[in-house]
Amino acid sequence: MDAFSKDFRDQFQTLLAWRRDVRRFRADPVDEALLMQCLDTFRLAPSVGLSEPWRIIRVRSAGLRAKAIQNYQTANARALDGYAGDQAERYAGLKLSGMQEAPEHIAIFCDDATSKGSGLGATTMPEMRRYSVVGAINLMWLVARAHGLGVGWVSILDAPALCRDLATPKDWSLVAYLCIGWPETSSDTPELETVGWETRQSTLHIEER
Amino acid sequence: MDAFSKDFRDQFQTLLAWRRDVRRFRADPVDEALLMQCLDTFRLAPSVGLSEPWRIIRVRSAGLRAKAIQNYQTANARALDGYAGDQAERYAGLKLSGMQEAPEHIAIFCDDATSKGSGLGATTMPEMRRYSVVGAINLMWLVARAHGLGVGWVSILDAPALCRDLATPKDWSLVAYLCIGWPETSSDTPELETVGWETRQSTLHIEER
Repeated sequence: MDAFSKDFRDQFQTLLAWRRDVRRFRADPVDEALLMQCLDTFRLAPSVGLSEPWRIIRVRSAGLRAKAIQNYQTANARALDGYAGDQAERYAGLKLSGMQEAPEHIAIFCDDATSKGSGLGATTMPEMRRYSVVGAINLMWLVARAHGLGVGWVSILDAPALCRDLATPKDWSLVAYLCIGWPETSSDTPELETVGWETRQSTLHIEER
Repeated sequence: MDAFSKDFRDQFQTLLAWRRDVRRFRADPVDEALLMQCLDTFRLAPSVGLSEPWRIIRVRSAGLRAKAIQNYQTANARALDGYAGDQAERYAGLKLSGMQEAPEHIAIFCDDATSKGSGLGATTMPEMRRYSVVGAINLMWLVARAHGLGVGWVSILDAPALCRDLATPKDWSLVAYLCIGWPETSSDTPELETVGWETRQSTLHIEER
């Protein structure tokens, strides 16, 4: 196994460009087999010490979905309080989560106390377990996008409250609350850039030592 | 832009399977343009609030490379002390870093205090900035592998000491110390599995609530 073809690499660049955070979903369901195929990507992800510390909860009950949405709304109102003037107005106009419409809510945790991998690689930097989970989420996200599915990562949440609502074990920390569904529209430009919140740097800065 | 072709998706699965942590590098150099092309993947990565908090240092001086290697060796000797009996023997036999041979050392940091993005999405979960950096590293890793290049993520390090040696600003935290180069061999099986340290789970467990 050496390099992949130029054609594959070009298409992969296109996938990376189109893989944006999605907050506008159609409400129609995602085929069960397709969802499972996307989630199964976790099994291909590398992890520190082969610890596979990801823990996945699919939130299906209407009550728990509503609690998660309420959690977001409260956290978002508090975040808005941190802005003033024009910026507050712009923040208030942003759509930062598609939780209401997205057919699937998937909460991803890291088991910080897993014995799998016997701690290898995670003694000096225990955050490597969570970073392994983040890496796996990113692979799944790309696979979903290759199927045309959208993923939105909601981070405006009171994580401890969410963990209480989902009754997770005490050693699990929330890494991501994901919305999954068919996107209403597609774009290769981040929505925050489109609406003028922030721009992307045009060149990458690399320091040398 | 809808779904990608079945052929592309199949090849992408193959890429995911082959993208393993590499610790055995050939010492010959990586073409400069190719290295820059791989690193440029950071510019396509999503980030919380469009904060683009990644900071990249290419470690080229022999003195700083040697310090980083010494840092790893000390941390690894300390990690070995945490194991006993058979496990200690097995740990001692593992090759956990290719820092000595790898032609490129790239240290990746997160600027936890960046004002870019104006804090959007990172108030409730400030770790989202570091998670954005981790995501970007994973994309770069895949692009490198698509070119046949290997990447190894070294986490057995005293991160504060490394930051001191590289004289990084106080708000930067080390996310990853990466070795990049041409792999000596290729495998779709993690080395820790090959040597019997740990096995991968054969099925993904998904809880429902």
